[in-house]
Order: sequence, then structure tokens, then C-alpha cells
Amino acid sequence: MKPQNPSYRDHTRAIFDKAPFIADLGLVLVDLGPGWCETALAVAPKHLQQDGYVHAGVQATMADHSAGGAAGTLVRGNEMVLTAEFKIHLLRPAVGERLRCRATVLKPGKTLIVAESEVFAIHAGEEKLVAKAMVTLVPVMKGGSPR
Amino acid sequence: MKPQNPSYRDHTRAIFDKAPFIADLGLVLVDLGPGWCETALAVAPKHLQQDGYVHAGVQATMADHSAGGAAGTLVRGNEMVLTAEFKIHLLRPAVGERLRCRATVLKPGKTLIVAESEVFAIHAGEEKLVAKAMVTLVPVMKGGSPR
Amino acid sequence: MKPQNPSYRDHTRAIFDKAPFIADLGLVLVDLGPGWCETALAVAPKHLQQDGYVHAGVQATMADHSAGGAAGTLVRGNEMVLTAEFKIHLLRPAVGERLRCRATVLKPGKTLIVAESEVFAIHAGEEKLVAKAMVTLVPVMKGGSPR
Amino acid sequence: MKPQNPSYRDHTRAIFDKAPFIADLGLVLVDLGPGWCETALAVAPKHLQQDGYVHAGVQATMADHSAGGAAGTLVRGNEMVLTAEFKIHLLRPAVGERLRCRATVLKPGKTLIVAESEVFAIHAGEEKLVAKAMVTLVPVMKGGSPR
Repeated sequence: MKPQNPSYRDHTRAIFDKAPFIADLGLVLVDLGPGWCETALAVAPKHLQQDGYVHAGVQATMADHSAGGAAGTLVRGNEMVLTAEFKIHLLRPAVGERLRCRATVLKPGKTLIVAESEVFAIHAGEEKLVAKAMVTLVPVMKGGSPR
Repeated sequence: MKPQNPSYRDHTRAIFDKAPFIADLGLVLVDLGPGWCETALAVAPKHLQQDGYVHAGVQATMADHSAGGAAGTLVRGNEMVLTAEFKIHLLRPAVGERLRCRATVLKPGKTLIVAESEVFAIHAGEEKLVAKAMVTLVPVMKGGSPR
Repeated sequence: MKPQNPSYRDHTRAIFDKAPFIADLGLVLVDLGPGWCETALAVAPKHLQQDGYVHAGVQATMADHSAGGAAGTLVRGNEMVLTAEFKIHLLRPAVGERLRCRATVLKPGKTLIVAESEVFAIHAGEEKLVAKAMVTLVPVMKGGSPR
Repeated sequence: MKPQNPSYRDHTRAIFDKAPFIADLGLVLVDLGPGWCETALAVAPKHLQQDGYVHAGVQATMADHSAGGAAGTLVRGNEMVLTAEFKIHLLRPAVGERLRCRATVLKPGKTLIVAESEVFAIHAGEEKLVAKAMVTLVPVMKGGSPR
């Protein structure tokens, strides 16, 4: 997959730096390349649900935003990406000190980009796949009316 | 739909009161009944993504947790509900001062509960459907090993 | 919802008349209007899976194609619609002499159309909701390269 | 992944041999092992939709049934599997002489089994990924009331 925007790295970093909810959550961009990005989250008590697991909403945010990062590496300089829909499977209760997410574009496109995100929980040095998502994203002109 | 737990109202309220991520987000339980619940969120700057819309992860958390609330009204006193998977469509950019979510159980069951959640944005007095989710939940014995 | 194509009825009927798999399955267009369509299937032994229920694939075809019909009522005369993705919940085992499907556009759009489909089984005069789907469709220029 | 049923191969073959819709469609079980199965379909004119591509419903049936086969290798001898829900992305128009599907269990479980299915189209000797699905399956006692 070839980036169409020479400054795709800065463009994608901005998706993370300029999103208040991402900063509030503590989601960090670890690395990125054409069609993929990787993120991490240090799990804090505020991320949990009523039974002590990381909330599905935290995992969903991570899966969705990382997919947006992966898709963001492939769009033009004057475009942004919006999520049209996603599905996430919560495969195991997410327990751990840290979450890691790897998002990969499965199918690039001008109209739609489809990406997958895998969320892993790291607990006592062991890493387990806890969630997997498939995400549909839409490239949209910056400042334009979305969809 | 008939609640099997006489104290289902308290049981469901606890799903909201005891979830740190829900308190942190500011999601509030508004009302509930057998097979449904309604929640609200006062939109703050921290809820936004990079383009000024409410982050998909916030809407997903709201849709998922409200579905959990709706399902929680139908399980036994010794059970909790966990989300197995959900899909959410972000139908329109979410702009507004307030979000409202209505979750309804579509199909109750001992093994699986399927619920729908609709998220509305209220902007300048006008309400628009911004997201819709379908959620699969699993009743699990409290303190037991999930799935 | 307003059709943009004055001959949207013929346009949508063609989606059914010209699809060999739909004829082979026996899926029939019952009625349509702007943003919706309704279809029916007389259940035959060939539609069943190994346990005697209507196969999930039959229900999925019905849900998908009916959503395509509903979306087809809203596109321009030189456009066709393709399914980008769908999710279907098989809520109850589908048993009956006849299936009925109602598809409704939830969100029209130039880039994406989101529709819902409900599949009902009619058994001994009683109708039950057996499946529900949410479908993302893409309007594409006829004869053009899709996506 | 370990089969719990010593005759899991015969058990899984029966899911294909006893399903009339699968025979009618022409879907063939190619190979299987613990937690996976592979299927093939010789594309015929009857499988197409109105624009000449293989119908999404055909691909969905293939993805769903193959996931059922993969899950079927892991259940007990007195159990069958039913699909609770699935989502399928139609990534590219499916054109070809033959479709191939590989289904793999992502997460086994007593209550739920999650599987992935990839559908490939083979056209003029070249193979392309045309669809990908994630499927939730439920093990159910044979002859028992499902869910």
C-alpha cells in the first residue's frame, strides 16, 4: 500500500494529537507505516467496568481510533477519515496492566477503507488477544460536509 | 418481557454506579424498565475527536453500556451481563450539547440477549439519530468464569 | 425520503428481475416505495440447513437483497447499489412455510446508504421476527469500476 | 485447539452432507482440522446478482457455513452449532470461476465460539480476497431447544 500524501506520518500523528477524547483516555500512538498503526494504553482504574475488566467502550475506542490511524496513512493531504461503522468482538475479559492495539488496512479505496484492529491485554508479561474489530472508514474532504 | 429478579431496578442501577469508566465519561442512567433503559451524556470538550464531533468511542461506550443496562433488567439476581460483540453505525457526525441513548432488548434468552441501542444528539433543541448499534450480551454467573 | 429517479420503481424491480441467484432462490419482490421494499419467500426443502431450519444464508440473502432494493429506490438512474458490508442476527430458529422481509433505509446518502432488514417467519398463521440485519450499501455508476 | 469428539471429522462432514441448501448451492467441503475448515464453490450463472458478480448472499452462505464447519470440529458429540450472528465485508466484486473459503476459530468456548471466514475468488489463475466475515456460533444440544 502506497501513501498518497508525502507527509502521511505527520498527518496521522495529528489524528492522535488533536483528539481530546484520545488524550483524556490516555491512548498513545506507538508506531505507524503505510496502511497500519500501533497504539498502547496504560490501564488505569478509570478504564474499568463494574466487574473489574477494561470497559468494552475503552477497547472499542482503541480499535476504532487505531483503525482511523491506519486508514489515515493512505488518504490525500486534504482528506480526513471518518468511521462509518465497526463491529467489535470482546473475545476474553480484558485484564492487564497495558493494552496494545494493532490496526491494519485490509482493503484501501477512494470511497471506503476497511481495516481490522486487534486488541491485546498484557498481564504479568503475558499477552492475550482480547478483542478484534472490523472497521469501515470513509475518506472525506477536510472542512467538507461529511457523507 | 418479565424481569426474573424482583430487585432488577437496583441491580441495573449498580451496573452504572459501579463502573468507573462510566462515571469518568459522565454517562447517566435516566430511566429503565423491563428490557430497556435510557441514558444521557452532557457533551464536554473532552468527548470530541480531532474534527470536533463526539468521538465514535464515546457513542460506542454509550450504546454498549446502555444495552448492558437493558439486558441487566432481565437476568437473575446472581447473574451479570457481559458484551460478546456489537456493531455500531455512525450515521451522522455527532454534534450537540447532549446525547441521549435508548437501548431495547430485541431478543431475551438464557444464553444470549440481543439488544439495540439508538444514540441521538440534541443540538439547539433539535434531536437527530446519530448512531445505531446491535449488541450481543451473555448472562454470566457473578464471580464465575466468563464464557 | 425522495427518489431522485422518476422511474425508481422499474429501476428497483430490475434489481430483482435481473439477478439469477434471486430467481433461483425464489425470492419475490412484494412491494416498494421511497426508501423501503418488502419481499417474500415460499420456504422449500432446498432452503433448509442440517437441523431443519431455514439456512442462515437464505435469510442473509433475503436481508441483503431487500436492503439493496430499498436503497435502489433512492439512487440516480445511472447508478446501481452494491453491498459494502452487513451484519445479521439470527434471533430464533427460522421455521415456517413462508418468510417475509421488510427493508428500510435508515440513512440515505451520496456515498453510503444504511438500511435495516427484518426477516419474519410465518408458521401456522403466526408471524415471528427471526432475523435482523443492518446493511451498508454504496451507490456506484453503472458500468463503472466499483469502489 | 483440541477436538472433544473423537469422530469430529464425520460430525463436521455431516454438517455439509445433511444441509439441503448447501447441496443446492454446490458448496463442497475440501478439508478440515481442529478449529478450521476449507470449502469451495464452482461458480455457475445461477450464483450471480444483477451486475454479473457472485451474489453477496452466496458469499455470506459460504462464510457462515464454513464457520459452522470450523466450530463443529470443536463441539461435543451430542452438540450441534447454530449461528447467532455474523458480519461480512464484501471487499471487492466477486468475479471468477471458483470461490474458496477458509474458516478459522478465533476463540473457542462452551457458550460461544467466534470464527473468521475469508472468501477468495479465483479468476484466470489469480486468487483475490473478496470477502471476510466474523461469525458468532452457539453450541446447542442436539434435539434440544436452541437458545
